[in-house]
Amino acid sequence: MANKRILLNCDLGEGLGPWRMGNDAEIMPYIDCANVACGFHAGDPLIMQQTVAMALKHKVLVGAHPAYPDLLGFGRRSMALSPAEVEATVLYQIAALDGFCRAENSKIAYVKPHGALYHDMLQNDATFKAILRAVKTFDSSLPLVILAQENVVHWQALAAEFGVKLWFEAFADRAYTDSGALVSRSEPGSVIHNAAAMKAQALQLARSGTVTSVSGKVITLQVDTLCVHGDTPEALAAVQSIRSSKEFS
Amino acid sequence: MANKRILLNCDLGEGLGPWRMGNDAEIMPYIDCANVACGFHAGDPLIMQQTVAMALKHKVLVGAHPAYPDLLGFGRRSMALSPAEVEATVLYQIAALDGFCRAENSKIAYVKPHGALYHDMLQNDATFKAILRAVKTFDSSLPLVILAQENVVHWQALAAEFGVKLWFEAFADRAYTDSGALVSRSEPGSVIHNAAAMKAQALQLARSGTVTSVSGKVITLQVDTLCVHGDTPEALAAVQSIRSSKEFS
Amino acid sequence: MANKRILLNCDLGEGLGPWRMGNDAEIMPYIDCANVACGFHAGDPLIMQQTVAMALKHKVLVGAHPAYPDLLGFGRRSMALSPAEVEATVLYQIAALDGFCRAENSKIAYVKPHGALYHDMLQNDATFKAILRAVKTFDSSLPLVILAQENVVHWQALAAEFGVKLWFEAFADRAYTDSGALVSRSEPGSVIHNAAAMKAQALQLARSGTVTSVSGKVITLQVDTLCVHGDTPEALAAVQSIRSSKEFS
Amino acid sequence: MANKRILLNCDLGEGLGPWRMGNDAEIMPYIDCANVACGFHAGDPLIMQQTVAMALKHKVLVGAHPAYPDLLGFGRRSMALSPAEVEATVLYQIAALDGFCRAENSKIAYVKPHGALYHDMLQNDATFKAILRAVKTFDSSLPLVILAQENVVHWQALAAEFGVKLWFEAFADRAYTDSGALVSRSEPGSVIHNAAAMKAQALQLARSGTVTSVSGKVITLQVDTLCVHGDTPEALAAVQSIRSSKEFS
Repeated sequence: MANKRILLNCDLGEGLGPWRMGNDAEIMPYIDCANVACGFHAGDPLIMQQTVAMALKHKVLVGAHPAYPDLLGFGRRSMALSPAEVEATVLYQIAALDGFCRAENSKIAYVKPHGALYHDMLQNDATFKAILRAVKTFDSSLPLVILAQENVVHWQALAAEFGVKLWFEAFADRAYTDSGALVSRSEPGSVIHNAAAMKAQALQLARSGTVTSVSGKVITLQVDTLCVHGDTPEALAAVQSIRSSKEFS
Repeated sequence: MANKRILLNCDLGEGLGPWRMGNDAEIMPYIDCANVACGFHAGDPLIMQQTVAMALKHKVLVGAHPAYPDLLGFGRRSMALSPAEVEATVLYQIAALDGFCRAENSKIAYVKPHGALYHDMLQNDATFKAILRAVKTFDSSLPLVILAQENVVHWQALAAEFGVKLWFEAFADRAYTDSGALVSRSEPGSVIHNAAAMKAQALQLARSGTVTSVSGKVITLQVDTLCVHGDTPEALAAVQSIRSSKEFS
Repeated sequence: MANKRILLNCDLGEGLGPWRMGNDAEIMPYIDCANVACGFHAGDPLIMQQTVAMALKHKVLVGAHPAYPDLLGFGRRSMALSPAEVEATVLYQIAALDGFCRAENSKIAYVKPHGALYHDMLQNDATFKAILRAVKTFDSSLPLVILAQENVVHWQALAAEFGVKLWFEAFADRAYTDSGALVSRSEPGSVIHNAAAMKAQALQLARSGTVTSVSGKVITLQVDTLCVHGDTPEALAAVQSIRSSKEFS
Repeated sequence: MANKRILLNCDLGEGLGPWRMGNDAEIMPYIDCANVACGFHAGDPLIMQQTVAMALKHKVLVGAHPAYPDLLGFGRRSMALSPAEVEATVLYQIAALDGFCRAENSKIAYVKPHGALYHDMLQNDATFKAILRAVKTFDSSLPLVILAQENVVHWQALAAEFGVKLWFEAFADRAYTDSGALVSRSEPGSVIHNAAAMKAQALQLARSGTVTSVSGKVITLQVDTLCVHGDTPEALAAVQSIRSSKEFS
């Protein structure tokens, strides 16, 4: 697909059984891409089916959001899976979600690993390759979403080996270090809660392809998609405002 | 597919994590159809991947074997799921397994519900329709396996509403009541352990389309597929012997 | 313990991992008994530990709230467990929760089965006896909470066999049928949302030991404990109002 | 308890639902201590109940064998739990197992973490302290089992802070490095399969308090309990032979 502007993506379908999280119905009209939980860190078959239906109704792309098998930890706790386990675990989740799209005469549009798996794949090439293998064997035309960084040569070379395209992702509501990494959630100021600041970061990325770190350093990032959240009134307002800008319309 | 003789099917891939069940490698060469567990009553992503690979290597058809979400009960305990829950739960499992086939450039060939779900769908039309809906929306060309009975008009009419084909299944190693139902597992003599008796029942079904009940009544059954087990030396010997007959070659 | 007035009980600790349900902190000051989820329908070790600590801080009795093993269905879907499975499942959950009390130099005060298990034990004597056996072998001094009914001779006789005391429970926010059963949640008007009506039903039970059915019939109920909810602003207001009455102070 | 000779311990109750592992009935007569799985890496309520009953019948001490919540990985995959999560998770499992002992008028005798948790607690003081806190608050008289090492001052000091006693464990069937650690399972020769070699290692530990490393270095270990396995004919024979020696009778 032509990817001329930065696509807005959001994690959705993150309830479980009787529990709800976020406000999928409110955010859906303002995003391009829905990262849908696949049952391992959140989501169950009924929620997945409903989330896919809602996304398709709003012409939002459906992305698989696979994770470690850890409901209690919401997929945010690193787990020492072998590469073979990662590959099979990711393939299972991608395929399950795609089934709900297929039942609606559609298909998933990309894959974005969740939580600890998203972080671990950048620390461990064997994990990254296992995910690439899962994507390739399921549908090699699906882009894999990873964190945008100043230098992405290493990841691009690995992805090229598998014939998988990468989408690079930035965050509207996360602070960046001087090296272009995200400030850890365990540190103060890691998450931006101010709607105006979120919009400013989004627009800077769209206009100049840069982000400014916590110390003031300007970092160049090649960005295909921007992650936003809509689970608070402030975040929702920020997303609506970002979406209404000409850069994100 | 042309279905000129009765196909031998077997439940496989029923391990979980470190636990194994049955002897998939030994039985695989002698069957036509592998009913592969999808992670809800047994099976995990790695086991599913390996079982699919083994089946395809032996040119065995892969069938989805979806179940209630109940690992501890092995899917054998009835659960009061709503029809919407059944539909989404079955669709999820079908799609997940199909993903492992797709990764091998293949696809699943049929759907056979497992355990309590297999029994409940014959007791509850809403459950049966929910399963039909899942099959139809995923791939309406996939046959659904249900128990062969003397009178199957009711199930054929429901399946026709959804445009789904049924495959009727008999059992080589289960005793039948006069009404053509299976003798309950809780009653003595419900399971046939003698290899010669298993083979005799299989050959009678293939040759005359009948089975003889525990009281001696001859019951006519239209049978597309015969369920066999290979998890004991005796059962494996029976399957090998059945397979070597001209009726099942 | 002396049980001179009707005790207010509430289901608490019903979050799971990252998900929350209800508002435990707001309701805790107004109740006598906290029915704490034990990890099978809701609750995880950390939530159980925190809920127990909060209850003890408010001098609220901690009750075990065991359920079928069904997180996705929140324990509200009937499951065909054998009596031996029910007994072991309930004993496991009771003991696990008691461990968190013990770590605080306390202990659980009663057992109240949750959801489908609560309903099934009244339909199936084998299930009821399995629960009684679990309570008896863990600590026969713990009362078991069951639904108050006009005629409870049958349940009292069974409980007496095991030397277990029963606590009979009524509901402030549920409508009653003429036979003294709860109107099913699937029927309109089954749940009372009006705070004044909830309080009126509570006071009638406390003052006259009766409840008035949907058709106007006055039913006599022996009630030890009244179930209330605090997960909506209206329900919380009702509980605060009930608690402030002299009948519930 | 007086602990004059080295106690033989074995991991038991490691089935799940329909799946079995090991041969509990055969090994039970030859051991002193049964490390019983608590439902998080293996074991379910029914299996726990049956394993406890079998142990008590043979006058075998019951130990809690808590693990990370990871059935698919059998608790052998490290998981990044917070110390608070470790504490609550271990306390839950200890208490649940103790409930089955209590139902038989007994109690657990010690705690031995399983798999990755067993290894991680030696790598991470916060994890070790979280486990100590769980043991202390549940019952500070329960010993905690950890790996015997040449220098255990560090662990003894931490355990002393919590008033918890340690039991040091050696292995009859694992090879040791020169530094007194276990050779990793991923390396050749890590597991001793020869019954005579297992017995020789056990007797050397009992007689001289030493073990000889793979390179021939003699290492002094203070050992309270020796882990054995009985899940193969060879291992069972080794245990029977060790048990029949005067050092282990």
